[in-house]
Amino acid sequence: MTTTLPGRTTVPAGAPLALHPDRLLPADPGVRGLARQLYDEVRDLPIVSPHGHVPAQLLLDDEPFTDPTSLLLQPDHYVTRLLHASGVPLEDLGVGRGPLPEAQARAAWRLLCRHWSVFRGTPVRLWFDAELHDIFGVRTRPSEDTADELYDVVAARLADPDLRPRALLRRFRIDVLATTDDPCDDLAAHRALREQPDVTTRVVPTFRPDAYLEAGRPGWAAQVDRLGRAADTDASSYDGFVAALESRRRHFVEHGAVSSDHSHLDIGTEPMDPADARRVHALALRGEATPSETLAYRRHLLLEMARMACDDGLVMTLHPGSLRGHHDPTTRRFGADTGHDIPVTAEYTRALRPLLERYGTHAGFHLVLFTLDATVFSRELAPLAGFYPSVFVGAPWWFLDNPSDIRGFQHAVTETAGFSRLSGFIDDTRAFCSIPARHDMSRRLDAGFLAGLVAEHRLDLDEALETVRGLSVDQPRRVFKL
Amino acid sequence: MTTTLPGRTTVPAGAPLALHPDRLLPADPGVRGLARQLYDEVRDLPIVSPHGHVPAQLLLDDEPFTDPTSLLLQPDHYVTRLLHASGVPLEDLGVGRGPLPEAQARAAWRLLCRHWSVFRGTPVRLWFDAELHDIFGVRTRPSEDTADELYDVVAARLADPDLRPRALLRRFRIDVLATTDDPCDDLAAHRALREQPDVTTRVVPTFRPDAYLEAGRPGWAAQVDRLGRAADTDASSYDGFVAALESRRRHFVEHGAVSSDHSHLDIGTEPMDPADARRVHALALRGEATPSETLAYRRHLLLEMARMACDDGLVMTLHPGSLRGHHDPTTRRFGADTGHDIPVTAEYTRALRPLLERYGTHAGFHLVLFTLDATVFSRELAPLAGFYPSVFVGAPWWFLDNPSDIRGFQHAVTETAGFSRLSGFIDDTRAFCSIPARHDMSRRLDAGFLAGLVAEHRLDLDEALETVRGLSVDQPRRVFKL
Amino acid sequence: MTTTLPGRTTVPAGAPLALHPDRLLPADPGVRGLARQLYDEVRDLPIVSPHGHVPAQLLLDDEPFTDPTSLLLQPDHYVTRLLHASGVPLEDLGVGRGPLPEAQARAAWRLLCRHWSVFRGTPVRLWFDAELHDIFGVRTRPSEDTADELYDVVAARLADPDLRPRALLRRFRIDVLATTDDPCDDLAAHRALREQPDVTTRVVPTFRPDAYLEAGRPGWAAQVDRLGRAADTDASSYDGFVAALESRRRHFVEHGAVSSDHSHLDIGTEPMDPADARRVHALALRGEATPSETLAYRRHLLLEMARMACDDGLVMTLHPGSLRGHHDPTTRRFGADTGHDIPVTAEYTRALRPLLERYGTHAGFHLVLFTLDATVFSRELAPLAGFYPSVFVGAPWWFLDNPSDIRGFQHAVTETAGFSRLSGFIDDTRAFCSIPARHDMSRRLDAGFLAGLVAEHRLDLDEALETVRGLSVDQPRRVFKL
Repeated sequence: MTTTLPGRTTVPAGAPLALHPDRLLPADPGVRGLARQLYDEVRDLPIVSPHGHVPAQLLLDDEPFTDPTSLLLQPDHYVTRLLHASGVPLEDLGVGRGPLPEAQARAAWRLLCRHWSVFRGTPVRLWFDAELHDIFGVRTRPSEDTADELYDVVAARLADPDLRPRALLRRFRIDVLATTDDPCDDLAAHRALREQPDVTTRVVPTFRPDAYLEAGRPGWAAQVDRLGRAADTDASSYDGFVAALESRRRHFVEHGAVSSDHSHLDIGTEPMDPADARRVHALALRGEATPSETLAYRRHLLLEMARMACDDGLVMTLHPGSLRGHHDPTTRRFGADTGHDIPVTAEYTRALRPLLERYGTHAGFHLVLFTLDATVFSRELAPLAGFYPSVFVGAPWWFLDNPSDIRGFQHAVTETAGFSRLSGFIDDTRAFCSIPARHDMSRRLDAGFLAGLVAEHRLDLDEALETVRGLSVDQPRRVFKL
Repeated sequence: MTTTLPGRTTVPAGAPLALHPDRLLPADPGVRGLARQLYDEVRDLPIVSPHGHVPAQLLLDDEPFTDPTSLLLQPDHYVTRLLHASGVPLEDLGVGRGPLPEAQARAAWRLLCRHWSVFRGTPVRLWFDAELHDIFGVRTRPSEDTADELYDVVAARLADPDLRPRALLRRFRIDVLATTDDPCDDLAAHRALREQPDVTTRVVPTFRPDAYLEAGRPGWAAQVDRLGRAADTDASSYDGFVAALESRRRHFVEHGAVSSDHSHLDIGTEPMDPADARRVHALALRGEATPSETLAYRRHLLLEMARMACDDGLVMTLHPGSLRGHHDPTTRRFGADTGHDIPVTAEYTRALRPLLERYGTHAGFHLVLFTLDATVFSRELAPLAGFYPSVFVGAPWWFLDNPSDIRGFQHAVTETAGFSRLSGFIDDTRAFCSIPARHDMSRRLDAGFLAGLVAEHRLDLDEALETVRGLSVDQPRRVFKL
Repeated sequence: MTTTLPGRTTVPAGAPLALHPDRLLPADPGVRGLARQLYDEVRDLPIVSPHGHVPAQLLLDDEPFTDPTSLLLQPDHYVTRLLHASGVPLEDLGVGRGPLPEAQARAAWRLLCRHWSVFRGTPVRLWFDAELHDIFGVRTRPSEDTADELYDVVAARLADPDLRPRALLRRFRIDVLATTDDPCDDLAAHRALREQPDVTTRVVPTFRPDAYLEAGRPGWAAQVDRLGRAADTDASSYDGFVAALESRRRHFVEHGAVSSDHSHLDIGTEPMDPADARRVHALALRGEATPSETLAYRRHLLLEMARMACDDGLVMTLHPGSLRGHHDPTTRRFGADTGHDIPVTAEYTRALRPLLERYGTHAGFHLVLFTLDATVFSRELAPLAGFYPSVFVGAPWWFLDNPSDIRGFQHAVTETAGFSRLSGFIDDTRAFCSIPARHDMSRRLDAGFLAGLVAEHRLDLDEALETVRGLSVDQPRRVFKL
C-alpha cells in the first residue's frame, strides 16, 4: 500500500487524463439530467470577461508563447504557492522571472508533474486538466514519469500558429476582455489593438488607482508626481490631485474603459473635510502624515472615486480584505503576487454607509462588491444589493472561486437577493489559457444550482433556462455596461 | 434568445402557477420518500406563532382587506426592497402609506408582476406562490401581461366573507398568535379580542421596550414620561423608571403576554453600579449623557430585563445585529422598516456572560437567541444552548429564513446542541397571509433534514417522526411557555 | 400523539439499537456505492491518535474500569453539558468526582438514559451507540425503561479481562496514542509503559505549557518556581525561565514526545524586546505586571515556543478561541472542563504573521492550526497552509467534530489547499472507549467526501483510493513526525 500525501505520485505512468462531459454537475441522476439540459443551453455562448489581468500588449504583439513553464507555471501563483507549501523553493519554479533556459524550464515542469497529487480537490486541477486536454491535446495524467513527455507535447503544440494569443482569443470565443491598468498608462496598446482587423474581441482597459490612494506607502509622492505629469496637471495640491484623477479616468473612458477597480485592506468611505484633505495631502507628500491621517485620506479618496463614477459612468468594483505580502522575505526576493496574500475579515455594512447614503441611489451608478470573506455574502452583501439599485454582488473570487464556495455563494446571495443582483462570473486571471475552463466551471455550477431549484420545485424549468442564459452573458453585460 | 435579468419577464402570459406537493423536499428519491412520510405527520398540525407583527386591532376590527396592493405589497419590505433594488421608486409602490386609490394600487401591482423574475430563488417567491394559489385560487404566473387579470382575481376574492381576518385565522389553523406591542399600550384590543366568541386563537401581546432602553436617542425623555404615566409612577428617577418597567411588564403578563422582545445593535449586558445608573438616567433625561454612558446604560437595562424575567416569568428573546435605517434619506422620507436594515457581525459569548453568570441557571428563566449572523450558530449559540438550561437557539430569522440558511442552521445547531435546544419556528411577519406558507416551508425543511439523518442511518425513523412533531408544535409551546 | 423534546423518551422499551453498515455515508445510491468502496479500503487500518487526553497512568495501572457511569458519563463534558442544559444538575451526574457509590452511579446512569433523546442529531449519540454496540454488546436503545438493564449489561462486561485498558488498546488497533502532559511531569508513567511487553502501542507524551505562559493568572509565580525545580534551573529570571522551558522540552523529546500543544484565547505572536521581557517577567513574579504586559509576554513566549520547535523538532499545535469557564459559579463548584468553555471568533492571518515571517519556511518546522471558528477554514487557514510549508490545517475539533462541520471543513480547506496540507484526524478525547468510533466516523466522512468528488468527475477513483488511505494513517504520521 502506497500513498502520496504530498510527495511523489505513484500512480502508473500512462494513467489517462480525460474530461467527463458531466464533470461538476450534481451527482443525483435526476438533478444531473436537468443540469445537463441547462448547461447545454450555455456551454457554447461567448465569454464576457469584465475583470482580468491578461495584458493588452500580449495580444498586440501576438508572439508565440515560449514554453510550457513560462506559460502555465511561473506566472500562476495559484500553482506555485501549493508547490511552495510542498517544499519546492520558488526559485526552482522561476517565480518572478521571465522564460527560463530550456533545462531549467523543463526541471521546473518536472517539479509540477511530480507534485501533481497536491492539486487534488482544488479548482487548479480542474482548470489545468481542461487546458492540457482541450488546448494541448494531452491525454495522459501528469506524473514524474510522464513529465518530459508532456513537456514535449505542450512545447510542440505552442509552435503552431493557432496557439498564438489572438488565435486563442478567437478560439476561446471571448467577446469582451478587460485588462487592468495603471492610471498613468497611455493605453497605446489598447488603441493599437482596436485597429487590428483580426481582433474582434472588445478589449477594454480598467482604471486601477490603488497605489495612488495609499498616501502612507513609500514612493507615493513620486507616483503623485507621475500622475500629475500624465494628466498634465499640478497634482501637488489636493485639488490638483483630484483633477488629475478625474482627467485620467476620462482618458480611460475615452479608450473604452467601463470600470475602475479598487483593492484596499478595508473599504471605509468616511468623508474628510476638504481643508483636512488638503492638509493631509501636503503632509503626505513631505512624508509627514501619520498612519491614521493617510488611512483617513485613502477612505476619503475612495469616496471621491464613487463621486467621479456618478459623473463619468465607470462601474466601481471593490475587492477588499487581502493582506498583501504576508511573508515579507518572499516579497523582497520574488516580488508581489507570489502566493502569500492572505485574507482577513471584511466589513461592508458600516464601511460603505457614507458612500451609499450619498450615491447609493444615484441613477446609473454601479458598485460591484467582491469579497474573500464568505461570511459576508449572506450577512452583508445580499442585504445591501437587495435594497440599493447601485449595488451588485461580485462573483466568488480568488480563494473563493472553487465549486463549494461558488455553491455556497449561490445559495447565500440568491435566497436573499435573487439572481438579478449578481455581477455574473469574472475570472480575474493572468493565466490566459485558463479563461475558458474557468467560465465553463462557472456555467456548470450555475446549471447545477438551478437544476437543484427545479428538482425541489422552487423554480419552473423555463425560468431556469432563462436564468442560466442571463447569468452567463447578459448579466455581466448589463452590470458592467458592456 | 431573450433573458430577463432583471427587467421584464418574457415568459408567455398564461404560464401556469402550480404548487408541487414535493416542493422543498430533498431531490434524492430515497430521501424524498422519507421526507414525505415525515412531512405528512405534521402538515396539518395547527400553527403556533410565538413572535410576529400582525396587529391585534386588525383581528378585532375584522374588516375586509381593501385591495391586493395594500394587503400583499405595500407593507412587506421583503417585497418592496427587491423592487427598489431593481430601480422601482418606493413611492410608486405606496411604501409608508395606507391603501392607495384604485389606479395607483393597480399600477403598483403591475410593477410587482412586471418584475416577478427578480424574486426567483428567494423565499418571497415561494411564499407568494403559496398565498396566490392557496388563498386566492390563482393558477397563472404573475407577469406584466397577467398583472391586471391577477389584480382582479385577488380583489374579487377579498370581498368574500371567508377572506376576512378572523376567517383566515381559523382557516390557517393558528392556535397561538403573538403580537408585538409598545410597553405603554393599554392592550385594550387584546382584552376585547379575548371576549369575541368566534376567535378561538390565543392572541397574546409581546412586551417590546427597545426605545425605552436607548437613552441616547432623540425623544427618549418624552418616552420615559409616557411610560411613567402609563405605569402611574414617576419615571424621572432611575428607581422610578425601573419600577415603571416592572409595572408595565406585569400589565402585559396580566393580559396574557408570554415574552418580551429585544432588538438592539449589540447585546452587551455589563451591569452598572446603581449610583452610576441613577446618574446617567438623570443626565440622559436632560440630554447631557455621552454616547458611551447611554450605551452602558442600555446594556445595564437589558440585564435588568433578565432580572425581571426571572421574577415575572416572561420569556426573553434577543434579536441583535441589525443596523437599522442604513439609508437615511429613505428613512426620512418613508419611515422605518422600509427595506434597508442591514446586518452586521454579532457577538454573544462575551456579551451575554454577565447575564448568564447571574441568571443562566435560574429555574424557569428562558432566553431565546436569534441572529442575523449565521456564523454564530455553530460557534456561539449552540455551545451556549448546549450548557445553559435557560438558553434556546431561535429559528433562522429575517434574512436567514430561507431554505439554505435554514438547512445550515439545522446542521450547525443540532449537531452540537441536539433538537431540544431549538425554539421552533417563528414567522416574525407582518404579512398575515404569508403565515401558513412560512410555517409550511419550515415543516418541509424539518422533514427533509430529518429524512437525511434517517437516510444516513444517524437516527431511527420512529425518532425522526417524534422529533418532527415536537419541532412543529410542542417545542415552541414549551420554550414560550404556551 | 406524544413528543419528547426534551424530557422523557416515550419510545417503547426494547427499541433496538443497531449500527447500519452504511451509516454516515452519502444517501445518493451511486455516491454511496463509491463511498463504500473507499471506506472498505480504510475501515480496518490501525489508529494513529496524535492528540488526546487518555492518561498514561491508566494504561500503566491497567485496572478494570469501575462502573459504567465513571467510565462513560462523569468525565465526558460532551455528555454532561447537554444533560445540564436539559435541567439535570451536574452534581446528580457526579461531575468532578471519581467513581460514585453504586446507587448514585446507577441513578446518574438513569438520568442519562431518560434523556437519551436530547442527543439525537449529535455525534455524541453516534459515538455512544457505537461504544454500547461494539464494546459492550448492547442491542437495546437506552431509555428510562431500559436504563437498569443496560447498566447491568455494561457493568458485567467491565469485569471481563478483555475490557481492561491495555486489552482495549490492542482491540482498538491503536498504533500511536499521544497523551497531554504538564511540563513538570517526570513522565515516569510513559517510561514504565514503554517497558511493558504487552503494550505495543507507541504512547507518547505531549508538552502542554499553557499555564506557564499566562503570567497574569493567579498562581503563576508558584508554577514558574515548580518549573525551575523540575528543570534544575533558576527560573526567576526571564533567561532562566526560557532555559527551563527548553530543558523541559528536551526532557519530553527524550521521552518520545513529538509535539507541544497550545491553547490560549488568541494566538498573537508579536515579539517583545528582550529587555522588556526580562522586566515583565520580574514584575509578573511579584504580581505587579499589568494585564496588557502579561498579554504581550504570553504572545512573546508563544513565539519563543516556535523558535524552540525549530531547534528541537517538536510539532507545534495551536488551539485558540475558547473562552474557558464561561459560567464561573460552575467552575468554582465543579472545576474546569465542565461543559461551558464557549468559542469566540479567532484570528490567524495577522496574529501569526510575526511567527511565520521568522519561522514559516524553516526546514522541518511543523505548525498545526486548529480552530473553533469554522469561518477561518476557507478565509485564513487554507490560504496560510497553501503557501507556508510549515503550516497544516488541523482537523475539525471539539464543537466542530461533527458530520456537517467536518464536511464543511473538507470542502473549505481542500478546495484551496488540497489534501496534502491536512493534519489528518485527531480525536482529542478523554473518553477512551470513544476513540474507535471517532476515527471510524472520520474515515466514513472522508470516504463520503472523496466519493462525491469521484461522482462529480473531479477526481479519478485510483486517486481517491490513494487519498483516503493517506488521510487515515500516512498523513498524521507525516505531519506529527511519527
